[in-house]
Amino acid sequence: MERGALLDLRSAAPDREVVEALLERPGVRIERIVSTGQASPAAAWYDQPGDEWVALLAGRAALRFTDGALLNLAPGDWVLIPARVRHRVEATSADPPCVWLAVHLDPAS
Amino acid sequence: MERGALLDLRSAAPDREVVEALLERPGVRIERIVSTGQASPAAAWYDQPGDEWVALLAGRAALRFTDGALLNLAPGDWVLIPARVRHRVEATSADPPCVWLAVHLDPAS
Repeated sequence: MERGALLDLRSAAPDREVVEALLERPGVRIERIVSTGQASPAAAWYDQPGDEWVALLAGRAALRFTDGALLNLAPGDWVLIPARVRHRVEATSADPPCVWLAVHLDPAS
Repeated sequence: MERGALLDLRSAAPDREVVEALLERPGVRIERIVSTGQASPAAAWYDQPGDEWVALLAGRAALRFTDGALLNLAPGDWVLIPARVRHRVEATSADPPCVWLAVHLDPAS
């Protein structure tokens, strides 16, 4: 049976984000992401065709939206980012590293 | 934008499990479950038509499978329980309460 440990930080890399697909099915993908201080490049926005349900499980992070809103996230905080709502990762803590759990949903076909 | 706090324990109830649907879409349902010492009734087994990806985010818990295997879970541990793999919740901690995040996947149609 497939299993893993979301909070195991041995995969943390100080110089880059580590993205790991935990489950991929038609219409849904569960990802674990470990960030260590990275942010989206200036003026780079995620603009996704499907909804994303994302939770921060460890660390501190902030998401920025195009209307200027800043969403600060603490461990356990989740947000549903609707398709086409542009957003960027404004900041992630390096110590402790950020652990994200993201569920990407394909657009309804 | 819909949001919430997975680790907010104000919804914990000492006498029962609290199940909250965080997202429902065709083929996928994300649930948060807070357990406070409950276990599956004796000889009661979950036998689900679809796969379940489940993570324990807080507390301690144990899952039992019909081959006798016991899977102890600590915070951050996740497991993919395939469809029709019968299992029961053997134990959950009350202090601290258990917070589960479950992603239920419909059987491929």
